[in-house]
Amino acid sequence: MKVHHARIMAGYAASNASLLRRLGVALGDPAAWIKLDDRKIALVRDLEMDRVRAASNADKVTCPAKHAPPTGLSVDRETATAEAATQIFRAAKVEVVTTDRTLPFIFAWHLQQAEIIVKYDDDYGVIDRRSKTEHEIEYLKTAQGYTETVMRTVLEMIASADTDDEGQLVHQGEVMTSESVKQFAAVEFLKLGCNLLHGAIVATAPEVADCHHSGTGPLRSGTPIIVDLFPRVDATRYWGDCTRTVVHGDVPETVGRMHAAVVEAKKAAIDELVAGNTADAVHKASDQKLIDHGFEISRGTITDEPSIQHGTGHGIGLELHEPILLDYGGGEMLAGEVFTVEPGLYGRKTGGVRIEDMLVVTESKPISLNSLPDGLDWRK
Amino acid sequence: MKVHHARIMAGYAASNASLLRRLGVALGDPAAWIKLDDRKIALVRDLEMDRVRAASNADKVTCPAKHAPPTGLSVDRETATAEAATQIFRAAKVEVVTTDRTLPFIFAWHLQQAEIIVKYDDDYGVIDRRSKTEHEIEYLKTAQGYTETVMRTVLEMIASADTDDEGQLVHQGEVMTSESVKQFAAVEFLKLGCNLLHGAIVATAPEVADCHHSGTGPLRSGTPIIVDLFPRVDATRYWGDCTRTVVHGDVPETVGRMHAAVVEAKKAAIDELVAGNTADAVHKASDQKLIDHGFEISRGTITDEPSIQHGTGHGIGLELHEPILLDYGGGEMLAGEVFTVEPGLYGRKTGGVRIEDMLVVTESKPISLNSLPDGLDWRK
Repeated sequence: MKVHHARIMAGYAASNASLLRRLGVALGDPAAWIKLDDRKIALVRDLEMDRVRAASNADKVTCPAKHAPPTGLSVDRETATAEAATQIFRAAKVEVVTTDRTLPFIFAWHLQQAEIIVKYDDDYGVIDRRSKTEHEIEYLKTAQGYTETVMRTVLEMIASADTDDEGQLVHQGEVMTSESVKQFAAVEFLKLGCNLLHGAIVATAPEVADCHHSGTGPLRSGTPIIVDLFPRVDATRYWGDCTRTVVHGDVPETVGRMHAAVVEAKKAAIDELVAGNTADAVHKASDQKLIDHGFEISRGTITDEPSIQHGTGHGIGLELHEPILLDYGGGEMLAGEVFTVEPGLYGRKTGGVRIEDMLVVTESKPISLNSLPDGLDWRK
Repeated sequence: MKVHHARIMAGYAASNASLLRRLGVALGDPAAWIKLDDRKIALVRDLEMDRVRAASNADKVTCPAKHAPPTGLSVDRETATAEAATQIFRAAKVEVVTTDRTLPFIFAWHLQQAEIIVKYDDDYGVIDRRSKTEHEIEYLKTAQGYTETVMRTVLEMIASADTDDEGQLVHQGEVMTSESVKQFAAVEFLKLGCNLLHGAIVATAPEVADCHHSGTGPLRSGTPIIVDLFPRVDATRYWGDCTRTVVHGDVPETVGRMHAAVVEAKKAAIDELVAGNTADAVHKASDQKLIDHGFEISRGTITDEPSIQHGTGHGIGLELHEPILLDYGGGEMLAGEVFTVEPGLYGRKTGGVRIEDMLVVTESKPISLNSLPDGLDWRK
C-alpha cells in the first residue's frame, strides 16, 4: 500500500489565521484544508466553494455532501465537515495524518474513530505564518499607513486642544476623555475601511501605570498621553499597530528623560532586528538601554515611579499578536518576519511613555513601515 | 488510586465562545478551563488573573508559571499553557481527561505525551451554550434593541429619500448606495457601543438573488431593499440580528405577494418554536407556507423569479451563528434556546424580501425580542 503524506488543518477561518491564510476567505462556517501527497484540497460549505476557488491555491475545492460516509452526514455543520474530511482520507486509504496545533478536537476524534493515526507537527501553520510574503508585507504596510493617518489626526487634536480651569483638555467645547478620543478614532478608521475591533488605548496617569489599561476619564495638559491604535483592515484582515505619546503643553522633566530613554531603547532594539539573531537579544538590547538611563524592571508590579513592565514587541499579521515574542528566551528571527517594537516606561505619578513601530526583518537592516516622528510635541 | 472526574477546555476566549462563557473575559492570550472533580480551575496569563477572578466562577485562578514541569515552561505562551495544564492533571494523578470539540490539538498532544487518555464529549460546551441564562437573554434583548434602533433610522432614511431622474435614491444630495448605508449603520452602532465586525447586508436586485450577497451600488425606488443588521455589543459580546425589507415608493404587485408569504411563513415558524418540538418542524412549517403561496425551493441555484434559498434560522448568543440550525434534520429545541427566524424569497428580477426576528424558546409560547413592524413602507 502506498504511504501517503497526509496533513489536515481545520476549524473556522474567521478566527483561525493559519486556516484563513490557506483558504483566502474568512469563512464563518467550518472548513478543512487537506494535503494528500502534493494535492491541496479545500473542504468548505457548498455556498462558499466559488469564493474559495477564487481566493485559494487549492487543487480541488469540495463540500461535505460530496464525501458523505455510508451512514450519512450529520446535520451539525462542524460534525459533517469532520465526517467528510475523515471520509476523504479513508477513500485514499490514508493511515497517518499530521495536524497542526489548532486542529479542533472534533476532527481528531473523527479521524481516530476511523482508526487513522493523528500525528502532530508543532511548527505546521506557525513557521509559514511567521515569514510573510511580499503581498502580506504590502497589506501590513497599508494597515500601518492607515494607522498613522488616524494617529496623526488624534495627536494633533490632543496637542492643539484648549484647556479648562482644571487643566483638562477641551475640544469643540467638550472635555476630551480617553473614551471620546477612542470613539473618534473608531469612526475615522471606519471611514478608511478599518475596524477597531480589539479597541484602542488612550491612557494617561495614573491608570497608565498598568500598561494593559486602555484608559479612562478626562485628558489633562502637562501629562503624557499614550495613544496605541491597532485597527484591522477589513478588506485584507491584516493589522496595523502603532503607538505614540503626546504631551499637551509643557513637558515635565522626568517625562523628557523617559522619552529620551524610550527612543534610544527602540533604536537599540531595531539595531538587533536581523534574520538569524534572536528575539531574546532584541529584548535585552531594549531593556538594557532603559536600565542604562536609570529605570528599573518591575514586571508584574505597578509602580509610582517610571519602570519597565513588558517585553519589547510581538509578531503581527493576520493576528494582532502572533508568535514570536520579542522577550526573554525568544528564538531566532526569520527573514520576512514582521514585528512591532514598543519599549515603554510607566508610573502612577509620572504617567507613561511608549513608542511603537512595525518593522520587517531582512538579512541586513530591518525595513520600517512607519514614517511618523517620535516626539512628544504634536502641535501643527 | 482515586479516579478523578477531569475535564478541560482551552484555547483563546476571544475567539472560542465556550471558553469565553466560562472565563468571562475575552482573553487574546491562551487559557484553559479545568474541572478536577468539583473544582473549577482557570489557567490564564499572569496579567489576566485578577480580571478572570472577578468575571468567572472559578474556584481557583492560576497561571502557567505556577505549574511548570520539571523541565521548565516553553517561552511560547500557548505551549506553556498546554504544559501547565498537563502538569495540573499530573500532580493530581489524573489518568483520563474529557474534552470538548474545540480543544486545540496542542493541548491534547501534551496530555497524551504525559500518558493521559483524552476522551471526547461532543455535547460539552455545546448543550450548555444552547440554553441561555436569564442574564444572557437580557444581553441578547439589549443587543436586539440596539439593532432595532439603528434599523428604524436606516429604513426611515431610505423610505423618505429623494430620487433622481433615473429613480436612484438621494440623501442629502448624494446617491444612496448599499455601501453608504452600511457605513452609516456602522457609525450609528459605534455610538451605541456596538461593532459591525461581520459587516451588514443592504441588498437589492439583482445581487440580492444570491442571498449571501451583502449588496453593492445605488439603491432605487420601487424595488425592495433587504436590510440585515447584526452588530455585537462590545460590553457583553452578545449579538443582535434583525432583518427588515423596505420599498421606497410604490410596492410592485409581486413584491407585495412575496411579502405576504414571508410574513405568514415567519408566523408559521414561530408557532412551532416550542421546547421539545424539532428545528426540522420549524423549518418545514415556514417552507410549506412559502410553497402554499406558490413559491418554489431553489436551494443552491440563483433564480430570476422569487424562490426559497435557505433554512429558516439559527441559534444566536456569543456567536452570531450558533448550533442548532432551524433547517431539515434539526433536532429537539430546548427551553431558553434563542433563535432567529428569517424566512425569505429571492429573485434577480423581483429582488428579495426577508424578515427576521429573534425569539426565546420556552415550554409554551416563544418570547419575541423584537418590536419593529414587519411592513415594507417605512415613511414616517
